[in-house]
Amino acid sequence: MSHSRDTMVKSCPMNGGDDEYSYTKNSMFQKETISAAKEIIDKEIAQKLDVKNPLFASSSSSFRIADLGCSVGPNTFIAMENVIEAVKHKSLPPKRPYFAAGVPGSFHYQLFPTSSLHFIHASHALHWLSQVPNEVVDENSPAWNRGKIFYLSAPEEVGKAYAAQFAKDVGMFLDARATELVSGGMLVLIIGSFRNEISPSHTLASVLFDLLESTLLDMAKEASLN
Amino acid sequence: MSHSRDTMVKSCPMNGGDDEYSYTKNSMFQKETISAAKEIIDKEIAQKLDVKNPLFASSSSSFRIADLGCSVGPNTFIAMENVIEAVKHKSLPPKRPYFAAGVPGSFHYQLFPTSSLHFIHASHALHWLSQVPNEVVDENSPAWNRGKIFYLSAPEEVGKAYAAQFAKDVGMFLDARATELVSGGMLVLIIGSFRNEISPSHTLASVLFDLLESTLLDMAKEASLN
Repeated sequence: MSHSRDTMVKSCPMNGGDDEYSYTKNSMFQKETISAAKEIIDKEIAQKLDVKNPLFASSSSSFRIADLGCSVGPNTFIAMENVIEAVKHKSLPPKRPYFAAGVPGSFHYQLFPTSSLHFIHASHALHWLSQVPNEVVDENSPAWNRGKIFYLSAPEEVGKAYAAQFAKDVGMFLDARATELVSGGMLVLIIGSFRNEISPSHTLASVLFDLLESTLLDMAKEASLN
Repeated sequence: MSHSRDTMVKSCPMNGGDDEYSYTKNSMFQKETISAAKEIIDKEIAQKLDVKNPLFASSSSSFRIADLGCSVGPNTFIAMENVIEAVKHKSLPPKRPYFAAGVPGSFHYQLFPTSSLHFIHASHALHWLSQVPNEVVDENSPAWNRGKIFYLSAPEEVGKAYAAQFAKDVGMFLDARATELVSGGMLVLIIGSFRNEISPSHTLASVLFDLLESTLLDMAKEASLN
């Protein structure tokens, strides 16, 4: 497909393996969120997933689940086992086998055939942008961030440029998922957020990101001096 | 699934990457065979693949192809593009997108849902055994091969043990594929073979394997001395 080269070239995966700096050893927070979401997902599947609906069931005899942006490590297995258990309680024979596959490509584009998925899950993934907004690195733009990588202490235009990029990316994500989901299918998104009435600068996450920004900039400066 | 641990542990993949000893740089022969098979496959698809058959088409709006034991490197893309082209000429809209996935596990077991595949391809793959036959490494068996790894200059029982293992493996392979294929689907196997009337000892392949055996045994001896 025409976009495949672009998305391959820019792909930035998490650290593989299971050493000290691997994603596997540094994703406890993501794991906790999956546990926290389990109860809500169980309830939604029990109440809302209409597996007997003919539109839902007609597409195939198999029930197809995708975990998008699931990185590496055990978290995706925990999340998918939760979903499989919840769906089994609903309708499926208890000992039905399942088959796994890995799918390459960016979730900002269609990754699965039209109307092929019954359940889509994306946890701590959708906040990743498809690219740094062009304006943010353009010296002639009012949204230029002067070599910095966080928007909090930057001109308002920087935050707006990131927000616009996010809106565009989420739009593409939702368009692709709408094409892939069968009628009556379910999409579960787990993503960090701020309440409307809270200013981002007053959140713990922002304080941490601010520290992280200066650390990363220091490391980059050190590397370019050496 | 109950077999997954066994098959994972014993998995022996080809060399990855693209350096001097990679499969990518050492699979010209396999590539040539794919080219040689193209014409036959084109003809079989044109003449025999009954894509309008309701049993065939009812399973889904997508056409699902699997290349089993496809290793790494470009050969699988060449083979799959050949199949996609041939099927397109038959019936599919010319610009239909396709979606790719990688599937883990041994092809001696079911890897895809029941009646989910329309076309299965396995080139230079089915000759790999699921294991060395137990008798061949058992000192108390008449099929013991005395630490050697080829059957040609060995007692007749050694060849028979390998043949029995192959028959069992092919049986499991075909059972699994029969479950996965839709009615009217097509299975293409490319595999080296001897004509019935030719003794294996009179073939070039056997001469090469004989040399390869003594080279590998020498290397193993050297490694255990160091």
